[in-house]
Amino acid sequence: MTTPTVGIIGAGQLARMTTQAAISLAVDVKILAADGSDPACVAATRVEVGDPGDLDTIRRFAEGCDVVTFDHERVDIATIATLEADGTRVHPSSTTLRFSDKAHQRVDFSSHGLPVPPFEVVDSASGIEAFAAEHGWPVVAKTAVGGYDGRGVFVLADVVEAREVLGALVGHRIVVEPMLDIHAEIAVVVARRPSGEAVAYPVVETIQRDGICIETVTPADIDPCVAAEATELAISIAELTGAVGILAVEFFVTPAGLVINELAPRPHNSGHWTIEGSVTSQFENHLRGILDWPLGTTTTTAPAIAMANILGHDDLTDPATRLEAALEVEAAHIHLYAKATRPGRKLGHITATGPDRARALGRVRAAVLALDAQPAPSTTTGVTR
Amino acid sequence: MTTPTVGIIGAGQLARMTTQAAISLAVDVKILAADGSDPACVAATRVEVGDPGDLDTIRRFAEGCDVVTFDHERVDIATIATLEADGTRVHPSSTTLRFSDKAHQRVDFSSHGLPVPPFEVVDSASGIEAFAAEHGWPVVAKTAVGGYDGRGVFVLADVVEAREVLGALVGHRIVVEPMLDIHAEIAVVVARRPSGEAVAYPVVETIQRDGICIETVTPADIDPCVAAEATELAISIAELTGAVGILAVEFFVTPAGLVINELAPRPHNSGHWTIEGSVTSQFENHLRGILDWPLGTTTTTAPAIAMANILGHDDLTDPATRLEAALEVEAAHIHLYAKATRPGRKLGHITATGPDRARALGRVRAAVLALDAQPAPSTTTGVTR
Repeated sequence: MTTPTVGIIGAGQLARMTTQAAISLAVDVKILAADGSDPACVAATRVEVGDPGDLDTIRRFAEGCDVVTFDHERVDIATIATLEADGTRVHPSSTTLRFSDKAHQRVDFSSHGLPVPPFEVVDSASGIEAFAAEHGWPVVAKTAVGGYDGRGVFVLADVVEAREVLGALVGHRIVVEPMLDIHAEIAVVVARRPSGEAVAYPVVETIQRDGICIETVTPADIDPCVAAEATELAISIAELTGAVGILAVEFFVTPAGLVINELAPRPHNSGHWTIEGSVTSQFENHLRGILDWPLGTTTTTAPAIAMANILGHDDLTDPATRLEAALEVEAAHIHLYAKATRPGRKLGHITATGPDRARALGRVRAAVLALDAQPAPSTTTGVTR
Repeated sequence: MTTPTVGIIGAGQLARMTTQAAISLAVDVKILAADGSDPACVAATRVEVGDPGDLDTIRRFAEGCDVVTFDHERVDIATIATLEADGTRVHPSSTTLRFSDKAHQRVDFSSHGLPVPPFEVVDSASGIEAFAAEHGWPVVAKTAVGGYDGRGVFVLADVVEAREVLGALVGHRIVVEPMLDIHAEIAVVVARRPSGEAVAYPVVETIQRDGICIETVTPADIDPCVAAEATELAISIAELTGAVGILAVEFFVTPAGLVINELAPRPHNSGHWTIEGSVTSQFENHLRGILDWPLGTTTTTAPAIAMANILGHDDLTDPATRLEAALEVEAAHIHLYAKATRPGRKLGHITATGPDRARALGRVRAAVLALDAQPAPSTTTGVTR
């Protein structure tokens, strides 16, 4: 069999689900894991354990790979540029990955007339104070690099809070933005191949709690013109950033229109619903894109599709022990990542299709509830033997 | 994480696709492969290479498995009965597997009033001659054990052919049946758990060439009453045979009504369409069934779903080299089994959904054609360097 080899740096759930998708196309996957017990290690046959921060390790890993891709964004851009100079195909490329820097992204997108919020890049409390003088308190401060799932994002009520937070972030570049009036958060997942062909999935609505996406639902409950605009913008952004494979673009829907929030140049939580909810999953289209193969159909398989994350409980019980109860829920697809539990940690997700948004959401919520439910404490004093 | 371990004896495409399904539920799969390059070996992390015919090998393999299942039917029933006596959970069980013997199946089903064709179990040409005297030539002779994909099935025109074939099958028990007038071949895939709960997938129509299933299409183009009868029969047969996990029941649709053809007590080619075409795939439901977990929804995801097998070419070229062309076909899902090519060998399959049977079939046929297509020989005399 003639099969290409895809190297994935990082062994989290994205690598795990990409590996699962690769089996159908007989694409050979090799994983560079920081730890041999990471989620993707149990799904892939070729796992190397090594430090993704070490250039020599990554260079050795890249040998024999037709293309290298990422599970996460914790690899130095300089390292990736070196691999590229070696002649290795890397997707997303160093050019695309530069847009993960929120300051670079805001400056570049603004210069191209894309809808970003008012912003300044600052490195001091006084910079924030000047911005607030124009736009009012509170403001939102985000570290240019390193934030995800709400980390690195701070809502600042006044100059006292600004000084406090900036004191803890010495040396960081900070993007400061006004507190927006947000009607909804949506995302558009795009797949693109090097030849330029790009396809977008239907717009998904994301529901956040404490800065973490807890649910998504498709179709988004927004004006179809706004959905069309978001789709066009996401495809433009894929082209502008030279994205190859999957790019997820997150938007705020505000009274003044769409505002670009964040980018993720890889399969993304907001696209997990595509495994069952779209003809081609984001994971298969990521593989097709980075291998420069024709991209798959992105239409939905049902009138509505909901996704909910399975988060670790405060009581540290393992939701997997309640799997059977969740499997009772009609049309619910349970995905477990085989991760040790920790409060708030993403341990898996659930997708359900349905005849409408309410019923699809009802199904994933019923399944989440089943995984959460604690057996009621026994009121009888039984004899234990 | 609390995850059960499923041991699969055999490492063909059924084990490969079961392993792929197991990733979502974080079910730990261990494979006993006859050869380390078998299709499932590249998809599973825990592979042991050993002889599935050796009791000690199988006993060692079964240690630490919560349940043992099979990719094929080449394990001695005596070996399986020994495992069961050891206290190992084995599904399908030795009781169910006895029904793979066509003579046992015909005799037992007939005694339960199930619709089997007229038959005799014989071991000589004269036995066939006596049967033909009553039912007429030609007759169909099948070895009681060992046949699949058309192997072990012989259409005999007269007593000369009967003698010739029986001469090559000394010691075999032969089931002889009349040549039926077959309008259509259909299959019903059932999932059942030990507690007795059983669910059936919608009836699938199977299209054969030279005794090998080359295509399936759902829904079957048959009278809805016949479809309902087939579904009821298949569930009764699952109960009668004590099947756990997937059982596929193949039927002939004849002018006189339904006739049971064959059983497969495991995921089956006639259920491959369920990966994309049903809410829960036969592979996930096989796992759920053998683990005694709630069974998943079996409704379809589209108005019509077609499947075509990818068969090895006579010219020995690898269809995988033409994968990109097949990926151009809308809504076509390509599954490659990573097997070396050989004329007529099942190397993979393609599933496509569509708004109706004709369009779903059109899509899988277009994808098969793309994998088959040879580049036209060049007519220019180019310079090769």
